[in-house]
Amino acid sequence: MMNVKKSQVLRNVSEVPSVLAFSQTAPDAGDFGGSIRILLRWKGSIYKKIWKDLLVYYGLYYLITIIHNYVLDEDGKIAFGALAKYCLKNSNSINVMIMLTFFTTTAMHRLFAMQTMIPGTAKVITYFVLSLKPNLPEGPIIVEQFARWTVLAWILTFRTVSKPLRSMFPDIISLQVAGIVKEKERLLLERVETEQNKTPRALMVIDWMLLLMKDCSIQNRFSEKSNYIKVVEVVMTFKKGCGNTIKFATNNMPYALIQAVIIVVYTYGFVTLMARNVEEASTCTFVEVIVNYVPVVPSMQFFVFLVWLDFGRVAVNPFGTDDDDIDVPLLFKTHVQDCFRLANLYSQDFEQIFGPLPQ
Amino acid sequence: MMNVKKSQVLRNVSEVPSVLAFSQTAPDAGDFGGSIRILLRWKGSIYKKIWKDLLVYYGLYYLITIIHNYVLDEDGKIAFGALAKYCLKNSNSINVMIMLTFFTTTAMHRLFAMQTMIPGTAKVITYFVLSLKPNLPEGPIIVEQFARWTVLAWILTFRTVSKPLRSMFPDIISLQVAGIVKEKERLLLERVETEQNKTPRALMVIDWMLLLMKDCSIQNRFSEKSNYIKVVEVVMTFKKGCGNTIKFATNNMPYALIQAVIIVVYTYGFVTLMARNVEEASTCTFVEVIVNYVPVVPSMQFFVFLVWLDFGRVAVNPFGTDDDDIDVPLLFKTHVQDCFRLANLYSQDFEQIFGPLPQ
Amino acid sequence: MMNVKKSQVLRNVSEVPSVLAFSQTAPDAGDFGGSIRILLRWKGSIYKKIWKDLLVYYGLYYLITIIHNYVLDEDGKIAFGALAKYCLKNSNSINVMIMLTFFTTTAMHRLFAMQTMIPGTAKVITYFVLSLKPNLPEGPIIVEQFARWTVLAWILTFRTVSKPLRSMFPDIISLQVAGIVKEKERLLLERVETEQNKTPRALMVIDWMLLLMKDCSIQNRFSEKSNYIKVVEVVMTFKKGCGNTIKFATNNMPYALIQAVIIVVYTYGFVTLMARNVEEASTCTFVEVIVNYVPVVPSMQFFVFLVWLDFGRVAVNPFGTDDDDIDVPLLFKTHVQDCFRLANLYSQDFEQIFGPLPQ
Amino acid sequence: MMNVKKSQVLRNVSEVPSVLAFSQTAPDAGDFGGSIRILLRWKGSIYKKIWKDLLVYYGLYYLITIIHNYVLDEDGKIAFGALAKYCLKNSNSINVMIMLTFFTTTAMHRLFAMQTMIPGTAKVITYFVLSLKPNLPEGPIIVEQFARWTVLAWILTFRTVSKPLRSMFPDIISLQVAGIVKEKERLLLERVETEQNKTPRALMVIDWMLLLMKDCSIQNRFSEKSNYIKVVEVVMTFKKGCGNTIKFATNNMPYALIQAVIIVVYTYGFVTLMARNVEEASTCTFVEVIVNYVPVVPSMQFFVFLVWLDFGRVAVNPFGTDDDDIDVPLLFKTHVQDCFRLANLYSQDFEQIFGPLPQ
Amino acid sequence: MMNVKKSQVLRNVSEVPSVLAFSQTAPDAGDFGGSIRILLRWKGSIYKKIWKDLLVYYGLYYLITIIHNYVLDEDGKIAFGALAKYCLKNSNSINVMIMLTFFTTTAMHRLFAMQTMIPGTAKVITYFVLSLKPNLPEGPIIVEQFARWTVLAWILTFRTVSKPLRSMFPDIISLQVAGIVKEKERLLLERVETEQNKTPRALMVIDWMLLLMKDCSIQNRFSEKSNYIKVVEVVMTFKKGCGNTIKFATNNMPYALIQAVIIVVYTYGFVTLMARNVEEASTCTFVEVIVNYVPVVPSMQFFVFLVWLDFGRVAVNPFGTDDDDIDVPLLFKTHVQDCFRLANLYSQDFEQIFGPLPQ
Repeated sequence: MMNVKKSQVLRNVSEVPSVLAFSQTAPDAGDFGGSIRILLRWKGSIYKKIWKDLLVYYGLYYLITIIHNYVLDEDGKIAFGALAKYCLKNSNSINVMIMLTFFTTTAMHRLFAMQTMIPGTAKVITYFVLSLKPNLPEGPIIVEQFARWTVLAWILTFRTVSKPLRSMFPDIISLQVAGIVKEKERLLLERVETEQNKTPRALMVIDWMLLLMKDCSIQNRFSEKSNYIKVVEVVMTFKKGCGNTIKFATNNMPYALIQAVIIVVYTYGFVTLMARNVEEASTCTFVEVIVNYVPVVPSMQFFVFLVWLDFGRVAVNPFGTDDDDIDVPLLFKTHVQDCFRLANLYSQDFEQIFGPLPQ
Repeated sequence: MMNVKKSQVLRNVSEVPSVLAFSQTAPDAGDFGGSIRILLRWKGSIYKKIWKDLLVYYGLYYLITIIHNYVLDEDGKIAFGALAKYCLKNSNSINVMIMLTFFTTTAMHRLFAMQTMIPGTAKVITYFVLSLKPNLPEGPIIVEQFARWTVLAWILTFRTVSKPLRSMFPDIISLQVAGIVKEKERLLLERVETEQNKTPRALMVIDWMLLLMKDCSIQNRFSEKSNYIKVVEVVMTFKKGCGNTIKFATNNMPYALIQAVIIVVYTYGFVTLMARNVEEASTCTFVEVIVNYVPVVPSMQFFVFLVWLDFGRVAVNPFGTDDDDIDVPLLFKTHVQDCFRLANLYSQDFEQIFGPLPQ
Repeated sequence: MMNVKKSQVLRNVSEVPSVLAFSQTAPDAGDFGGSIRILLRWKGSIYKKIWKDLLVYYGLYYLITIIHNYVLDEDGKIAFGALAKYCLKNSNSINVMIMLTFFTTTAMHRLFAMQTMIPGTAKVITYFVLSLKPNLPEGPIIVEQFARWTVLAWILTFRTVSKPLRSMFPDIISLQVAGIVKEKERLLLERVETEQNKTPRALMVIDWMLLLMKDCSIQNRFSEKSNYIKVVEVVMTFKKGCGNTIKFATNNMPYALIQAVIIVVYTYGFVTLMARNVEEASTCTFVEVIVNYVPVVPSMQFFVFLVWLDFGRVAVNPFGTDDDDIDVPLLFKTHVQDCFRLANLYSQDFEQIFGPLPQ
Repeated sequence: MMNVKKSQVLRNVSEVPSVLAFSQTAPDAGDFGGSIRILLRWKGSIYKKIWKDLLVYYGLYYLITIIHNYVLDEDGKIAFGALAKYCLKNSNSINVMIMLTFFTTTAMHRLFAMQTMIPGTAKVITYFVLSLKPNLPEGPIIVEQFARWTVLAWILTFRTVSKPLRSMFPDIISLQVAGIVKEKERLLLERVETEQNKTPRALMVIDWMLLLMKDCSIQNRFSEKSNYIKVVEVVMTFKKGCGNTIKFATNNMPYALIQAVIIVVYTYGFVTLMARNVEEASTCTFVEVIVNYVPVVPSMQFFVFLVWLDFGRVAVNPFGTDDDDIDVPLLFKTHVQDCFRLANLYSQDFEQIFGPLPQ
Repeated sequence: MMNVKKSQVLRNVSEVPSVLAFSQTAPDAGDFGGSIRILLRWKGSIYKKIWKDLLVYYGLYYLITIIHNYVLDEDGKIAFGALAKYCLKNSNSINVMIMLTFFTTTAMHRLFAMQTMIPGTAKVITYFVLSLKPNLPEGPIIVEQFARWTVLAWILTFRTVSKPLRSMFPDIISLQVAGIVKEKERLLLERVETEQNKTPRALMVIDWMLLLMKDCSIQNRFSEKSNYIKVVEVVMTFKKGCGNTIKFATNNMPYALIQAVIIVVYTYGFVTLMARNVEEASTCTFVEVIVNYVPVVPSMQFFVFLVWLDFGRVAVNPFGTDDDDIDVPLLFKTHVQDCFRLANLYSQDFEQIFGPLPQ
């Protein structure tokens, strides 16, 4: 049996879906209080994401203002004004916008497509459990082994794409300690993905599952013969899901595009730092103060771009540790729990729970 | 039997689809009267959505006009004019537009994708009912139980995402009162989603359904053996639909993006309040009146943005109480009615209704 | 047998697909004559759609020109010039464009998605006909009944969304007159969708189909037992298609959005009426004439917007009487014809038509 | 046997996929030579598409220049300058761009969706061939007939949408001459699609296929009984594909939209002819020459729009004779070849080709 | 047995998925170091892609500066200034942007659609292996042959679209040398795709697979009769995948569009070379230096366009040798390895690996 460490597997009550839903569902759109509550939220908020950049930006902004007002001489001020005007002309925000829209839309398009292909363990296990003959003496053991291997294939797949899961299970030994892998299986697994045998480990485990099913078919353990090929189909879909997950993570957006977007956004930020209408400012003290000390409009634009960029980059790598990332360790716990529960279906009996049906 | 409270379950005649369709279908595009009728409609209209914002906006607008005309002295007026000009230059509406397009398109893309995955109870129940052997003595009871559990799983899923349904059924007792849950089942359900057993309740109910089907298979109640695995497949699809619904509601658009869009739109609104061409206005009394008192064009832009934002936010949380939201309680009533009707299919007889077929 | 009124069901030769295709296929892109032919076409053309708006627009335009030239005094002309300039500045067509693109794209996205889900009767009937045992004495009657009910469910579904079909069959009696409903069935149908029994009528008919199939299964009329559950699946898909059609028609684009788009486009139209460069015009008689009497460029823009808006609105309600709408009554005739033909497949014999196969 | 005329059916070696692929695959992006080779290609190139328009455009451009320089008097020149300035202001290319993007994207979206639904004959034939009992004496004849009818249904479908195929087979007699239709079948086919019997011909042929399959089922010719309903399913999918192809071709983009886009693009072209900065040009001889005789930038924009428009229009009607169109006659030849080959599978024997398997 | 040359088939450890994933997964978005690491990466980077263009661009830029400053006389400078101003006005970057967005989005849309249709060999082989009766004496040979043919069909398909694979296997002999084709098969393959027999080679191989399966069905080698038609379905899906791959590669984006985009981007580049604000520059030495020697902003725009163009062109031809291309030879090695492993499943025994199950 899997003796996964308690602290690793047991999720807190705050992680039960319905509780999560209470706290995570967005408030109604028509609700004014809802808008306020959304704006005041800190977790995963725009403020949390950009407060550091904000500090740096405003620091630099005031530094430039101070240099202009107190450091530069007349000539310097003229050069400064000319440069500021030049920057103002070239701070074309629409292009940055179109580029960001393209980048983020593409990244999210991929992400959504991937989310529908992510492999789940529940369907595979349920299918296998329910397609076996009931009351086989070796049934519970087979079912436990199959369910454990399904979870194992899932872990070996997500270990390659998710850093948090990788630090949870840095090697096969750690999986054995957690009871997910048995001694014998560990030895087999350690032989692959090496110089001699380059089979990916997840595929190895799926092969075991197929062999176990072949054995069940030979030993006539399926309640109907045709169930065998149906379960094979479900396992192949699971395998494809695993493959797609790895493909998505390693073969996603071209680096050059991500680099281009980052460079464009930060260059825009630097340009807006300088892009101040010095001439206009000098016509009126009130506006001068605003231009020099309250750069709300240009900075807001830049910060919106930063958030947008961040949004796209999270979509490029959704298995990391960002606030909006998919919480792979939580997902792992859910899969382990499901796997226990579904394997139990084999030995559970309807009448034991609800009593005999009235005739 | 489910003795759901009449007032809860019985939908009004005005909720029957065909009647709804008469009143909700959009008029023909080519029809001039149709355009007028669309513009004059109040329910779910742009006017209903924004009249409060409109009042506040115009109030502030006139306040600023009054301050400028009667409160400010000459210096103040110059500062005001400079600030107004500064605002006018920075009120870049295209960027707001592109951002809103992105936000709303993304939110709606998700919503549409979700709508095709929303679970329905009718298919599951029909499949189960029709795949059993006819005329089993325990048949009607089994069918009733299965249909009720399907609806129960549906409710437990949508309770987590829809506030209106949550206030309809705040706890398991309320479900028992409505006859959807039996005493024994309530006790079992109350044991999960607690600190000791964190299985989500909907999954628990689906496990019961699977156990009931396993029992039917063992007792040889399916009219064909292979029906068993087919019904399992339909139930697994239903389960996936439930899971997707919760995933959609809890893991939708990043908060930071919603915040960013709200901040951008309202900042744009505040900037347009100030962004008036004071200089131009002063050249001609007629235009001065328009600029100061009839800000149709700038305000219209802002209100279009508000409607658009609202549209996107409704798409982010489609299970709430907004006018365009999915009416989950009505959906619930429909599912309960369907469940009754379809369970009846088991004991209904073609010949009883239409008489024997002529040979 | 269905004795649908001749004039209702028989489609003209010009409605046979291949003839339609000849006349409706767009000419080749590279063909110059093709472009001309496209531009000269009247049916469903841009000219037909907007000639009335064009008349009103030009009427108003010349009226304003006349007022400016012959009615206004010097002060009035100055105010007019100022207002015209103000309008010119605020006639931002890009925003209207982005908004229209969003609206129309979204509406069409939905429409395309719906078109792939629209239910067809042919598949259901063919499946049922071919899965029965051949040469049953009661076969032709069963097949005729099933085919008729399929068409009936289709009609009852599309009656709720399509006005033209609704005026073709205003009530159940009219369906009985057309031979689509029998006396007994009419009585049953009239009992639903009332205060006491709110089951939608189409669902009622689908229930009859399921009962008929259950009866066939019990009486062992399917050539293979497993055909039963397969036909159930096809019927369930048909039912889902019906449900999706109604869902699409009643739960489409929010009213507020349609209102917003209409308001924005017409406001833009009114603004362009005034938005004339009076100053520039006064510098040169030639340009003055153009500005005052040949507003090709601004009006063209507006009319393109009108066409675009119309396009989006047709996509919102594709079952109406607009030129580009889906012709539901024609579709109905096609389904009735198909239903006759496919039900005949049951009693038709390959050898009767083509003679015995050479051995 | 089909004795299709050699010249019609035999494709040249240059039409074999792998040879096509060698010549049609786009060069590598990183390859500089590749860019040059792409730019120098004539077939299907931008130059081929627009050289005629280019000639007309430059002709008109120089004509206007000549009129300005040598024909107009001083007053005329002033009017010309004013008109040119007016045109320059109103040549808003962004709107044309957004509109074209919308039109082309929508057209291509439809095209791509259609391409995945286009019916193929190979799957239907393979399925039928392999699901029959081997070694039936009448097998080869049945298989040949079924394969021929599948191709016939395909042709009758694509004849309605593709002009080239229509001129290849103008009537049923021409199909009989090509050996695709037999005498008896021709007589049957000529009776439909007339005033008395409006069944589309393709549906008639599919009915024959279904009857043949029913006959095979009755005569117990399927190697497994359940194969029958599976082949029915494949044939229904094929039928749906045929229907979708016709639907796509006859019910595509609204004419009004195509007209609007054509009008907008050509109006833009005419406006750019006049839109020259006469004032600026007069300040410097060098620029004057460029403005008057080398209108590279404005004309390029217009030609890009032309290409884009052309691209969209090809997507609207992809079955024509444009360079980028689907080559329906080639497709037809491929289907005929495939049909021969696959029908042969029935009588071919593995051991005849590869000898007996070593035991 | 396949004796593929070691160097060809054995992938390096650095090509094992999990190792690839470690190095290729994008860093977390929130991680500041991650941004830096992304920006500093060389492989597949923006720098690698554009450094040559960068050199040429800056060379030309300085050349023009030098010509202006040291070569031109006063008249020339005036003409230069006028031309520069003319270019500045006409360097409309938004249009280039919209066009690029359209091109790249369309190319990527196609690419993503294709990626989901790319054929894989694993599913076909697994299905066939597991649907055979276990322990047939000829089993291992049949399984090996089938697996080898699947890989062969895959290679013959991808040879037509991927240059790298084509240079790996320039002819059928090279495939025989690698052990993928046997003598007899080579002779058969060399007879097709010639003037006499134009069947594509991949289809030929798939025919062999179908014949082998037919033979297995006749010889009663499937563990269940119904498995036969299921494997046929999987093979047909594989065949469709092969066809789609070729269709995608040969029938992708129209050449004219690619040409148009390349011409537009490079013309934009040339225009920005000249588009310098000479007048403004002369007002202030500091700005003059920037305008003449540090064209960061205009050049950055152009380089972003170049990257974007490159991105789109890689998407048009994803089987080439670009950095972001699909690595077809690596894919080939993976398929060969998988094919070995899966064919082994036939003779592998669960109990041999894990011992007998405890009862």
